[in-house]
Amino acid sequence: MRHFQRAAPKAAHIPKKIQAAFKLINAPLYSVEERIGAQAREFDPAVEGYVAYACQSSGKRLRPALSLLAGGATGNVSSAHLELAVILELIHAATLVHDDIMDGAEIRRGQPTANAKWGNTLSVLLGDAMFAHALRLSTSFTSAEITRRIAGATAEVCSGEIIQTQRRFDLSLSIADYLRIIEMKTAMLFGAATELGAMLNEASPEVIGAMKSFGLKLGTAYQIYDDCLDLAGNEADAGKTLGTDLRKGKLTLPVLHLLQNCPESERARWNNVILSGEGVDELVAALTARGSLKNAIAFARNLLAEAAAALEIVPPNRFHKALRDICQSVSELLGQFDCR
Amino acid sequence: MRHFQRAAPKAAHIPKKIQAAFKLINAPLYSVEERIGAQAREFDPAVEGYVAYACQSSGKRLRPALSLLAGGATGNVSSAHLELAVILELIHAATLVHDDIMDGAEIRRGQPTANAKWGNTLSVLLGDAMFAHALRLSTSFTSAEITRRIAGATAEVCSGEIIQTQRRFDLSLSIADYLRIIEMKTAMLFGAATELGAMLNEASPEVIGAMKSFGLKLGTAYQIYDDCLDLAGNEADAGKTLGTDLRKGKLTLPVLHLLQNCPESERARWNNVILSGEGVDELVAALTARGSLKNAIAFARNLLAEAAAALEIVPPNRFHKALRDICQSVSELLGQFDCR
Repeated sequence: MRHFQRAAPKAAHIPKKIQAAFKLINAPLYSVEERIGAQAREFDPAVEGYVAYACQSSGKRLRPALSLLAGGATGNVSSAHLELAVILELIHAATLVHDDIMDGAEIRRGQPTANAKWGNTLSVLLGDAMFAHALRLSTSFTSAEITRRIAGATAEVCSGEIIQTQRRFDLSLSIADYLRIIEMKTAMLFGAATELGAMLNEASPEVIGAMKSFGLKLGTAYQIYDDCLDLAGNEADAGKTLGTDLRKGKLTLPVLHLLQNCPESERARWNNVILSGEGVDELVAALTARGSLKNAIAFARNLLAEAAAALEIVPPNRFHKALRDICQSVSELLGQFDCR
Repeated sequence: MRHFQRAAPKAAHIPKKIQAAFKLINAPLYSVEERIGAQAREFDPAVEGYVAYACQSSGKRLRPALSLLAGGATGNVSSAHLELAVILELIHAATLVHDDIMDGAEIRRGQPTANAKWGNTLSVLLGDAMFAHALRLSTSFTSAEITRRIAGATAEVCSGEIIQTQRRFDLSLSIADYLRIIEMKTAMLFGAATELGAMLNEASPEVIGAMKSFGLKLGTAYQIYDDCLDLAGNEADAGKTLGTDLRKGKLTLPVLHLLQNCPESERARWNNVILSGEGVDELVAALTARGSLKNAIAFARNLLAEAAAALEIVPPNRFHKALRDICQSVSELLGQFDCR
């Protein structure tokens, strides 16, 4: 390995409320971290350093945590669950490498992005190599069905991102379209984590279905939370300038609600803000005044309640409780936008 | 499907000599073409048109042809061989979508590239979605080993391209480095086609090994041919301006031979041409004068002879003969550079 300095390992930026639910799986999460590091070393030595860097900066390890908790909630946390966790995180990290290229992002979680360090060309290839490696790892499961679903979820994530890109600045985007996009681009990997975590334990089809439903709903709610953070969070929490999505033409739930619920006379003005990028601050203020943020919060909280309800058919244990606690934590995190 | 016009199907640009060897598998190749079209329809309707476009423009179908011929040479051409052919071609098409972004290419095979039509952002995602879909398809084989090897070859292709990118304009690149890069980025998929074509027929380990060796050597020789075409072909055949690789800092076999075999006094001059991009025509002329093109031709022909020799342990039949004929055809194609 040449030309690189490994970034120092750093505490992941996980909201404290969610961190508590991870305590139960601290030891296996640590093993996942080690395995991710070991994966980088499976690449050609000339490529290893790039992969190690990209994996380190990918963040919160939500998908690994869900894979492990789903294992615990439906039986036990086996070595296969660790492997699932590593694979889903590699896929997520690969999508971030490509997202950062497309967004022209220079910093992610306080570190220069791969594209900022090595350029877009290398970063396109780096993401590709990480995808391919993750899918290679996924062939080690005994059941080809697991492999198939991981590849399927990956294809959905990419298709979701294509549709999102295609519909930037598209004022005809419906709320249903938005929900479909975030289900594909975000919720699918959450759903794969919880579904496959159960499937690895040979849970019943009902339990597998319930766990998948849990992951999809949690993932969708989490993306709505993240989208609200971009519009109304404080900049330190969001880790970026507010209104970034809007300036890039990404229309998220509060904005879509505003467009559908403001008086006709006002709508032309907001359309103009979206298309021109001028006046974003006023639009953000209107999201509160018109109740559009409140609506998004309520929508996400409803999803979280449905996610928790989906778990009801799964016999309770402490992992099961931790999954419900995550829903509760995201619901509380949504509260920060409530007073505005 | 919206916003698209499908490109009219067009005759693939296959050198005539190689086309003859494909005659034997015309019918299954046609089925492969239909299946590739059908794959595009498995994507979300919003994404389908992009995939269909990218698959149409990917060219010669060499990897599908090798998969089918390898099937015929080791038993029979089954439906699984058609599937292997489709998967390898999708992976190849995905790499081309990403290559065109990185090269800023606007035209491929007479059609606008995906990035020229829809921009880099969408094209990064399009390639990703195609990779993921191909790997999803690969989970349908009965043997997980096939899936594993396809994902493994894909990871190698991406790593090879990373190393190539990393070492552009690197005057310390050795011929061994160059050979490793082209084996990874090109020969791996050729090798996967012939190896897995045999494996699907449950051939003996010796035959599978021989078929893989055949594909790797043919793929390496083919890439050397393609690299010579860029330096000394006629522009109509090459389909692009000559010296493009050199201007992008890609050092290929004839250039590396020249640098190693010219007098010390001359080397500084060629190094300067490579780094500055000024004087490419003189460098190309020197490749003939110094015997560097001849050397590359001889090297590639030697590989082709080794490829054909590797087939000796496989019982002869007409498919086996067609594979040998491809080696012969590439060897003859190399002859075009011989008189210069």
